[in-house]
Amino acid sequence: MGHIHRRKLLKGAAVGMAAGAVAAPSVVRAQMPVKWRMVTSWPKTLDALHGSAEAMCQRIEKLTDGKFQIRAFAAGEIVPPLGVADAVQNNTVECGHTLTSFYFGKRPAWAFDAGVAFGLNARQQAAWMHHGGGKELLNDIYKKDNLVAMPCGNVGVQMGGWYRKEIKTVEDLKGLKFRIGGLGGIIMTKLGVVPQQIAPGDIYSSLERGTIDAAEWIGPYDDEKLGFHRVAKFYYAPGWWEGSAQITTLANLAQWQALPPAFREAYEAAAAEQTLSMMAKYDARNPEALKRLLAAGVQVKQFPRPVLEACYNATFETYKELAAKDADFKRVYDAWLPFLDESNRWFRICEAGLDNYRFAKAIKRT
Amino acid sequence: MGHIHRRKLLKGAAVGMAAGAVAAPSVVRAQMPVKWRMVTSWPKTLDALHGSAEAMCQRIEKLTDGKFQIRAFAAGEIVPPLGVADAVQNNTVECGHTLTSFYFGKRPAWAFDAGVAFGLNARQQAAWMHHGGGKELLNDIYKKDNLVAMPCGNVGVQMGGWYRKEIKTVEDLKGLKFRIGGLGGIIMTKLGVVPQQIAPGDIYSSLERGTIDAAEWIGPYDDEKLGFHRVAKFYYAPGWWEGSAQITTLANLAQWQALPPAFREAYEAAAAEQTLSMMAKYDARNPEALKRLLAAGVQVKQFPRPVLEACYNATFETYKELAAKDADFKRVYDAWLPFLDESNRWFRICEAGLDNYRFAKAIKRT
Repeated sequence: MGHIHRRKLLKGAAVGMAAGAVAAPSVVRAQMPVKWRMVTSWPKTLDALHGSAEAMCQRIEKLTDGKFQIRAFAAGEIVPPLGVADAVQNNTVECGHTLTSFYFGKRPAWAFDAGVAFGLNARQQAAWMHHGGGKELLNDIYKKDNLVAMPCGNVGVQMGGWYRKEIKTVEDLKGLKFRIGGLGGIIMTKLGVVPQQIAPGDIYSSLERGTIDAAEWIGPYDDEKLGFHRVAKFYYAPGWWEGSAQITTLANLAQWQALPPAFREAYEAAAAEQTLSMMAKYDARNPEALKRLLAAGVQVKQFPRPVLEACYNATFETYKELAAKDADFKRVYDAWLPFLDESNRWFRICEAGLDNYRFAKAIKRT
Repeated sequence: MGHIHRRKLLKGAAVGMAAGAVAAPSVVRAQMPVKWRMVTSWPKTLDALHGSAEAMCQRIEKLTDGKFQIRAFAAGEIVPPLGVADAVQNNTVECGHTLTSFYFGKRPAWAFDAGVAFGLNARQQAAWMHHGGGKELLNDIYKKDNLVAMPCGNVGVQMGGWYRKEIKTVEDLKGLKFRIGGLGGIIMTKLGVVPQQIAPGDIYSSLERGTIDAAEWIGPYDDEKLGFHRVAKFYYAPGWWEGSAQITTLANLAQWQALPPAFREAYEAAAAEQTLSMMAKYDARNPEALKRLLAAGVQVKQFPRPVLEACYNATFETYKELAAKDADFKRVYDAWLPFLDESNRWFRICEAGLDNYRFAKAIKRT
């Protein structure tokens, strides 16, 4: 998932209510509903993302018999998409719904909450967060910024993007003008890629005109809506720059602590439910979208193994550099890496053992 | 996950309260907490399973400020482990926590709720249930038995069991006395396996004495507790007879309909949360347990491809036979199979593309 350019969001900034107004403290009075605002990093068209935030808010309201009401605002309605963390931290709004690797420049360690290159897949990420110490470790870092964080969704492994020409060798990456942001972009510069920051609404025309050679966005279900398949026919897999893309809900720490316990319970349960449900929705919708894209003539390709190999090496080189520069990054990386390796060894034996056999069979049946 | 023998459970039947007492209707009075009983199919020692039922009940109580109280009872405390569905259906208790393929003899179609041979993995199962029509389709069948069902956990792909001798060819399955129940056992009889029904507490001694040649149970975290590695050194992967083992909570339909809406919301949200959390716990604990088992000298093996091939063919032959005999089985199978194939094609491209590369790397790093 690439950075969403601020420019795109500023367009929508006038739409929202009371932009910049600081959230009043949620004093709980008998019979008075607590009202929160949740700003998301997503336009409403990304219904699996923004829709999940809305579903979370609806569940919380129903769980509390209407006593805890959270209204979700799409990107740009109150703050721009990359302004979510600041808005929550500064108490402009009480909570947000975002991808924490958007804030890589501000807090590199937060990227482990979202998912990093060649990192944990969606199930492994949930295991690390909920039963492997990840949530506690990351919240120890978030609290420095007056934030409480918890997972509230996952997008899974994304596609590796749309390319006008095939990527056959590592050499083909040199000089490639690729729309990608954040950590993935930093890693790829080591291989000669020239990362491009382009707003979602401008990717199509940039690809069409050849201003860029390639662009990554999300996966079949979301990509199809933007029509990239009409201007770039090679659709590569996998998006190795995120083992999965976990979506996080951030709450302002003081606001969180002021909540009655049952409201915190409702928030936590609803966030966990959406972690499952968002991934399930993508897993249900992506195959249908992929089928339509294939029917439209899209050529799905896998990155050649030497390309992955070069990217993998550049990735772990980058991690070492970041760990040397940033203490929080090092602290999380040192806990995360052994979990990754042990988890991979188990998944390879059991889950992959059966999955790989089954997946190949499905290709044959049709 | 094999059938748990009734005998084991009857041992514990005296422990429970008021066995056989029919649950009083949950009339909701102002300020009076609603009290339900949840019977599980699990001994307390299986903490990832029974513990998840307890966590679900605790969350529901907290979400409702103590107004909806559900107490979880382990297998045998009120009813035997395979008596859960009947107890809920007959209103002996209001709800249960079980694996629906335990009731294969009663309702073959319910097996799709639990997971079937070469079927959906845990993520695919969640996608089918929550966003692919699975939950609605299955509940249309459950209501015939006065039940409402929803997922409340998953165990993932299980191991293929403990063997005293290696399985090198399809011939090695002939006459194999293998402790396995349900649909997996039925499929394996086509290959000459002699399925054995043995209570969990007796598996160890049966393997030790050579009364049986092999036994499947769950996976490293649970298997380790029973000490099978001391009497059978070959530990095979994968447990192809379940693509994943989804755990289901069943509620009595009349009791469910009598609940206030906010209590149903609490039940649903807590069940969804545990679907994520149980899988996450297994995914966090299995790698650690596997590491200990390997250190103890266990030899982990993959079933040879020709063996999987024979099992796969026997599986789909069995499905066709079952669909010809049972209308509900056919109805679910006809909806499930296209979902399986489309989902597999997508997972192969994106998730497996990255997973397989990553998993192999983790082996090398150590």
